[in-house]
Amino acid sequence: MRQNSHGPIGVFDSGVGGLTVLKSLMAHLPHESTVYLGDTARVPYGTKSGEVVTRYSLKNAEFLLEQGVKLLVVACNTASAVALPALEAALPIPVVGVIAPGARAALARTRGGGVGVIGTPGTIRSGAYQRALEAADAKVRVKSRACPLFVPLAEEGWTTGDVPLLTAREYLAEFAREGVDTLVLGCTHYPLLKGVIAEVVGPKVALVDSAEATAQAVAALLTERGGLASAGHAAPTHAYYVTDVPERFVEVGARFLGRPIPAAEQVDLTF
Amino acid sequence: MRQNSHGPIGVFDSGVGGLTVLKSLMAHLPHESTVYLGDTARVPYGTKSGEVVTRYSLKNAEFLLEQGVKLLVVACNTASAVALPALEAALPIPVVGVIAPGARAALARTRGGGVGVIGTPGTIRSGAYQRALEAADAKVRVKSRACPLFVPLAEEGWTTGDVPLLTAREYLAEFAREGVDTLVLGCTHYPLLKGVIAEVVGPKVALVDSAEATAQAVAALLTERGGLASAGHAAPTHAYYVTDVPERFVEVGARFLGRPIPAAEQVDLTF
Repeated sequence: MRQNSHGPIGVFDSGVGGLTVLKSLMAHLPHESTVYLGDTARVPYGTKSGEVVTRYSLKNAEFLLEQGVKLLVVACNTASAVALPALEAALPIPVVGVIAPGARAALARTRGGGVGVIGTPGTIRSGAYQRALEAADAKVRVKSRACPLFVPLAEEGWTTGDVPLLTAREYLAEFAREGVDTLVLGCTHYPLLKGVIAEVVGPKVALVDSAEATAQAVAALLTERGGLASAGHAAPTHAYYVTDVPERFVEVGARFLGRPIPAAEQVDLTF
Repeated sequence: MRQNSHGPIGVFDSGVGGLTVLKSLMAHLPHESTVYLGDTARVPYGTKSGEVVTRYSLKNAEFLLEQGVKLLVVACNTASAVALPALEAALPIPVVGVIAPGARAALARTRGGGVGVIGTPGTIRSGAYQRALEAADAKVRVKSRACPLFVPLAEEGWTTGDVPLLTAREYLAEFAREGVDTLVLGCTHYPLLKGVIAEVVGPKVALVDSAEATAQAVAALLTERGGLASAGHAAPTHAYYVTDVPERFVEVGARFLGRPIPAAEQVDLTF
């Protein structure tokens, strides 16, 4: 299947977290236009059921398809964990989630000492990382743990100090004890808490986030299918949509994206 | 207006928190049937905009109206703070929120030393408690603070220990310093954190939650309008609806309601 190489890349997340994936995409594929949708009226996904997250993901994808996207990136670990098969079945374009690239990146880093996975309750309950890791390496030892308070801590901006440190200790002590050598940050909010996570698990554990690996997977897929935008065809554009009012997204999102977000448009997908 | 005294009382909240209000209602009005709706597919409301919370509240009310309720209790502080005028304008039945009863309860407790209010970002940003307190007593001194991490802490069941205590210190130190004598727990989740909150603000500060006061307001309103169910007419029934899958609501909800929830039915209001 040869893709239309002029359409933008569509990216959705439950909120601002997926902007870390968009940031990596922009760095790897500077000629590509993008359309980002943050479902801020229904955030978070990580504490909701797979059924509800799948329903929301299909709505998000439908909206992005209407914007003419040539490829969909599911930049939310929870949605990638539970809704990828439904999205692939429903959409006429390629769909890339963050779980498989994150799992591959973890396997490239581990030295055989076991891989830890942390994420939202929805992601961990789904077992998606476990399956992706074991599919690529049947012998890998995987240990998973849901860390529900990490998302509100990152959203609140409490990324250093006693509260995040003690919270990280409560969640991660078992990883430090049982010895994994690689820890997958299986939620796009968690890189903001890298400092306290690293302090708890120690310098011998490699922290892996899937933003970088996902961007590489998208680049490889578009190259293989002849779908890359050509340099100089037209200056790339970057559009942002949200389902709640845009002010907070624009403000907080800049921290995740690493550059200002000029504007975001509110759309209603709750029909 | 004379109410139909046979219909149930409708109660909605963004999730499980409003069950503390339902618990007080059941204690005060043991002959009344109730229908509770927890909007668990869109929880939380406290971090979302007034516009979105109002839209969800109207959907919830519409569903409860279809169940034949004679009166609506908005058992969510955020929805009471931002959506009450829209609900009152749209509905043909009386609507009771938790803010005005909570404010009255606080004024009955304060000894002139100032009233503190804590709640979600949405509730505090709305200024609804401040307005309700000042409307009843123009001279009252009010100090407000949003405590966004209290809801995820209560949901996670982390209600004792270092993390909730240090979090409460961070949020509440200013109340201890500046001396209020009464603190309104302006979110239905916060009573679960009463222990650490009391430890931080000290024994001289009265903690007020609005569940009790709201139940009294409902009883007074129904009595005044002749809408009370008569004892012995029929055994009261209690129905529970949620918008996400019911398992977690049934399990966690029992802690908030103080009795088992036999079953909850899932309904889709996201059309």
